[in-house]
Amino acid sequence: MANSKYEYVKGFELPDTLLPNVWIVVRIDGRSFHKFTTKHEYSKPNDDRGLNLMNRCALEVFKEFPDIVIAFGESDEYSFVLKRSCNLFERRASKISSSIVSYFTSQFVFRWKEYFGEYQLKYPPTFDSRAVCYPTNENLRDYLSWRQADTHINNLYNTCYWALVLKDNKTPVEAENELRGTFSDNKNELLFTKFNINYNSLPAVYRKGSVIYRKMVQEESIDSRNNQPIVKSKKRAVVEHIDIISDQFWKENQDILNK
Amino acid sequence: MANSKYEYVKGFELPDTLLPNVWIVVRIDGRSFHKFTTKHEYSKPNDDRGLNLMNRCALEVFKEFPDIVIAFGESDEYSFVLKRSCNLFERRASKISSSIVSYFTSQFVFRWKEYFGEYQLKYPPTFDSRAVCYPTNENLRDYLSWRQADTHINNLYNTCYWALVLKDNKTPVEAENELRGTFSDNKNELLFTKFNINYNSLPAVYRKGSVIYRKMVQEESIDSRNNQPIVKSKKRAVVEHIDIISDQFWKENQDILNK
Amino acid sequence: MANSKYEYVKGFELPDTLLPNVWIVVRIDGRSFHKFTTKHEYSKPNDDRGLNLMNRCALEVFKEFPDIVIAFGESDEYSFVLKRSCNLFERRASKISSSIVSYFTSQFVFRWKEYFGEYQLKYPPTFDSRAVCYPTNENLRDYLSWRQADTHINNLYNTCYWALVLKDNKTPVEAENELRGTFSDNKNELLFTKFNINYNSLPAVYRKGSVIYRKMVQEESIDSRNNQPIVKSKKRAVVEHIDIISDQFWKENQDILNK
Amino acid sequence: MANSKYEYVKGFELPDTLLPNVWIVVRIDGRSFHKFTTKHEYSKPNDDRGLNLMNRCALEVFKEFPDIVIAFGESDEYSFVLKRSCNLFERRASKISSSIVSYFTSQFVFRWKEYFGEYQLKYPPTFDSRAVCYPTNENLRDYLSWRQADTHINNLYNTCYWALVLKDNKTPVEAENELRGTFSDNKNELLFTKFNINYNSLPAVYRKGSVIYRKMVQEESIDSRNNQPIVKSKKRAVVEHIDIISDQFWKENQDILNK
Repeated sequence: MANSKYEYVKGFELPDTLLPNVWIVVRIDGRSFHKFTTKHEYSKPNDDRGLNLMNRCALEVFKEFPDIVIAFGESDEYSFVLKRSCNLFERRASKISSSIVSYFTSQFVFRWKEYFGEYQLKYPPTFDSRAVCYPTNENLRDYLSWRQADTHINNLYNTCYWALVLKDNKTPVEAENELRGTFSDNKNELLFTKFNINYNSLPAVYRKGSVIYRKMVQEESIDSRNNQPIVKSKKRAVVEHIDIISDQFWKENQDILNK
Repeated sequence: MANSKYEYVKGFELPDTLLPNVWIVVRIDGRSFHKFTTKHEYSKPNDDRGLNLMNRCALEVFKEFPDIVIAFGESDEYSFVLKRSCNLFERRASKISSSIVSYFTSQFVFRWKEYFGEYQLKYPPTFDSRAVCYPTNENLRDYLSWRQADTHINNLYNTCYWALVLKDNKTPVEAENELRGTFSDNKNELLFTKFNINYNSLPAVYRKGSVIYRKMVQEESIDSRNNQPIVKSKKRAVVEHIDIISDQFWKENQDILNK
Repeated sequence: MANSKYEYVKGFELPDTLLPNVWIVVRIDGRSFHKFTTKHEYSKPNDDRGLNLMNRCALEVFKEFPDIVIAFGESDEYSFVLKRSCNLFERRASKISSSIVSYFTSQFVFRWKEYFGEYQLKYPPTFDSRAVCYPTNENLRDYLSWRQADTHINNLYNTCYWALVLKDNKTPVEAENELRGTFSDNKNELLFTKFNINYNSLPAVYRKGSVIYRKMVQEESIDSRNNQPIVKSKKRAVVEHIDIISDQFWKENQDILNK
Repeated sequence: MANSKYEYVKGFELPDTLLPNVWIVVRIDGRSFHKFTTKHEYSKPNDDRGLNLMNRCALEVFKEFPDIVIAFGESDEYSFVLKRSCNLFERRASKISSSIVSYFTSQFVFRWKEYFGEYQLKYPPTFDSRAVCYPTNENLRDYLSWRQADTHINNLYNTCYWALVLKDNKTPVEAENELRGTFSDNKNELLFTKFNINYNSLPAVYRKGSVIYRKMVQEESIDSRNNQPIVKSKKRAVVEHIDIISDQFWKENQDILNK
């Protein structure tokens, strides 16, 4: 059974190389996660177990693919930024994008129990992914700002919506109608006056999403020769819930964009 | 925090629509599965638990995406064929390809226990995926023939190699050297004379891989009105280990290519 | 001045290979030809010199690129169909598409004088081009039918419009208004009753556009040994104004699609 | 003859949008220009009529497409750089690339007589084109440096080669052999000692190629009110033969990259 007569079919696989020297963003998104979170009784508007699991999976992806310099996540989506000089899989879009989404999904199921304990995973979830290129640092920062601003907008809305539904016994349609056309100010006011919620004192993970990057941290160990403590500066992957829209983060972490 | 000033970044996501009216093949491949199968002590050259798990995951994918008309798998890879008229995700390559690989991976971890029992999954596996287009039925059949011929070639080689290593105590290098330059005949001969293995009597799943398709089957049920059995013909997704290189399969299942 | 330090920039040129085994259609289109034909005082609704020049350029393109099996043109556009097995420029889309449009344009200016005589070309025209893939013979025939049906629709409209403007002294706006919402029947009727024009007796080149293909023709030559005439069958590139929507043409020229 | 049943074929034309916010370089190249220049008896190693015609065509392209900020040409090729923010044809690669190569070719034939006088164009030339993206200013400058360094390398070689062939009566093979493995120094030395040619005093257009850009120039006109001369600063498209590898040009023309 010679294979050579069929091998021509390899020629139908067309190259999908990404342009060199641009930032590559792989964004993964939960498929039908409205249904998934309902079936798995996620707390609304935010479920800490669910968010922590997402962040853990993203952290594992971050560690597995060293070309990722920063990642940002909210709700059921995560964006992974690969450095300009990335040559992973010769920059083949489908290899990069599919490996990341596959590993993320794999982690999600693998670590479900760590975050949901005895609460069983009822069926396996699906994420999709895509790779998008950003030529300049400004374009990349605007992309990340877009996602973080979106986090804020969605979370403010969801916080109001679920307060109306859960605490005020509104139907979904009534809650939607009450929120239609309102601005941020109105929503903040609503939360404060009606539900005694100060939006800005809610956990940052809800309001700002999650940022993963390598941070210089001080680590203490014991010198085995003399039992004295040694402090070393080390880069560690961390998950933080901080503002990446304004300049401060980028001033303090200039190596991310300069890599 | 207005999002509108950042929304322009959506424009960097370029369309990746696949050509209409061609067969779409999504092939997934295990990443670093040599290491994965070693760490998880897979039997060599074939591990039934591993193959059954792969087939089960593929069957679930097959059922989840009705546009898939046939799938073929061997070792750590699976090819899913979506019909010409498929309009899933408007034929966006990355959406199709990533959703399939994510769901497959998710199933793999989710169902590990069903096939490996108490044997723990040590770390989550990764698969990659790609979408390839085939314009004619002949091209598509040649693609599937290519994969099935590859199954045969690899399995014959691996069967010899592992017989030499496991039964004949050869080192890997010695086994490789002994097999270098041999033809199928030589390998069949080697198996038979040295190890008393009749290659053609090995399980078909090893030699032919696995084919998933919808098959007309007779199903019996009980008529609740009169407690009599009723036989109905129904299309059912089945996993079989049969030849798809020669014409017979295609003659018996003409609707696959004519869909 | 070593060039090696700059050569990395070649890596930014991404491959644009077209899928194998599909029909490749390169369509060229005049850019701003409304202005071009006005400035060059083309007769309306059809200018024989202009149409003949287009056909001549297309014929030269047809002869220059032997992978082209059929071409169809109307007005300021021409479609060139390259055979499925075409490997011109390794099927690189931009090479194929740009070479054809460049050669066509070059011919247009080069041969202007042959068709327009003393009437000077006032400025050089521009055409654009694109390459589109069609997987099946049916898709390709539908493409060509689409263009030929378009020829008919446009020409019937234009014939009416210009009759109203040129013979009935209507303003452009009046002519447009009179034709708005009319069907083919109405237009044929209008031409006949008002202008005594039997649409179907107009030259076929206006109504059906132009088809270029290789046709088996009888050619007579003189045998130098005995001065007797010899008749040989030969394939010759011809330009004809015939129906390619119905089956007859394709039955008589089966080798076009079977190449 | 309804066209609607065929219109689905439009869906096979897949989008080819170029990434936003990157430099777009359209490079055109003469096809078979070795033969073309031989048939048209171009002077060797450089033909002023031919170079001037190329530059004139490029200048016309430069004026026709205002998004072009700089162009560089040598021999039978020209590179046109479109600004990052270019939205010509919605950044569709084939439209941009084909329109430029078509207009360039059209100009070439149209203006042949202006540069070659009574010497007839024997057949129409063809150019091909492609569009390549460069993300950073550095990448773009490196691209232009690559082409200008190439100009130098080719011209030095060709000057030696044709001196050996034309003045020293070497055969092509002998000339090639003599030059094989030589460095720039050797070639400069050869030209000087054997042919009394000081390479650096050859016309800059041969050594550096041609740069087209908009330059601030002083233009004098007469004020019709008082017949006094007025001097105004104006941007004018110019063709110059200057170094664009080192920084000076870019310091003096910062608006090119900052556009």
